Amino acid sequence: MSDPNVRDDAPAEPKWLTPEQQQAWLGLISFVTRLPAALDTQLQRDSALTHFEYFVLAALSDAEDRRLQLSTLAQQANASLSRLSHVVTKMEKTGWVRREVIPGSRGSNAVLTDAGMAKVVEAAPGHVATVQGLLFEGLDDEQVAQLTALGTAMLTQLDHGLERGLGRA
Amino acid sequence: MSDPNVRDDAPAEPKWLTPEQQQAWLGLISFVTRLPAALDTQLQRDSALTHFEYFVLAALSDAEDRRLQLSTLAQQANASLSRLSHVVTKMEKTGWVRREVIPGSRGSNAVLTDAGMAKVVEAAPGHVATVQGLLFEGLDDEQVAQLTALGTAMLTQLDHGLERGLGRA
Repeated sequence: MSDPNVRDDAPAEPKWLTPEQQQAWLGLISFVTRLPAALDTQLQRDSALTHFEYFVLAALSDAEDRRLQLSTLAQQANASLSRLSHVVTKMEKTGWVRREVIPGSRGSNAVLTDAGMAKVVEAAPGHVATVQGLLFEGLDDEQVAQLTALGTAMLTQLDHGLERGLGRA
Repeated sequence: MSDPNVRDDAPAEPKWLTPEQQQAWLGLISFVTRLPAALDTQLQRDSALTHFEYFVLAALSDAEDRRLQLSTLAQQANASLSRLSHVVTKMEKTGWVRREVIPGSRGSNAVLTDAGMAKVVEAAPGHVATVQGLLFEGLDDEQVAQLTALGTAMLTQLDHGLERGLGRA
């Protein structure tokens, strides 16, 4: 039982991981460390993009009228508004994205330009082949469904923990 | 059918993700982006450590005689030898780790000092509480077993893809 006088994120008596949890955790850490590095490496090598930049361009290319409010785009890209804003500024300089004031709002849209669209079209085949080769070629349909279900449960708990202040600055 | 004249990692006709794969992928990217950031934030805030530094100290604390060959430690920590070596040098300066030549070998061990052991003992409770709160409190035993099994399949494919040169510089 937890002590009600102890903050959830700083327990006096930590609940150590079970051997089963430890095994799952080590595999998860290996995956979450190595996959992003591999995605960045391929995109940097072949398209001079980080995976984050590619993800932002791809999200805009899928959006209606190729535009999204910066706050919405930040959420989709799993980034803080300040991190996203920094990358949008960088991609304004390359001409792939422009900012657009939203009338009657304090917000702005990011808009994908034709040059930005051309960039994502050029980068997509290599990226998708990498995603297939690093992940989906090893999973059957049932495992893909499991990954979605388990991923949803894991993201729900992650949000719940973050809302409680765990892992927040 | 794939064209045998086309390199696996640069297909002329990419095999686009199915809607089911796309859904699984977006959840996975969200998780692999946000979990490491949350782990780093808690450890930086409470113990002035990156998760990578914590992971290295914890691996040494679990090892026989609190020492591991650098190449073995790099593999366990999912890092290149050069990245690990850089962090070991940093932790030699804080007195948590020392290097030790392995007689008759060109390799070196990293050895956890008493100060390093004290550091990991101090940092562990907050980290483990974060791992519980961001992940395991949301998963029952069956889901933990699923995570291990699915994680193993995913790491196997990741290794297979990396061996084929996908996501390599």
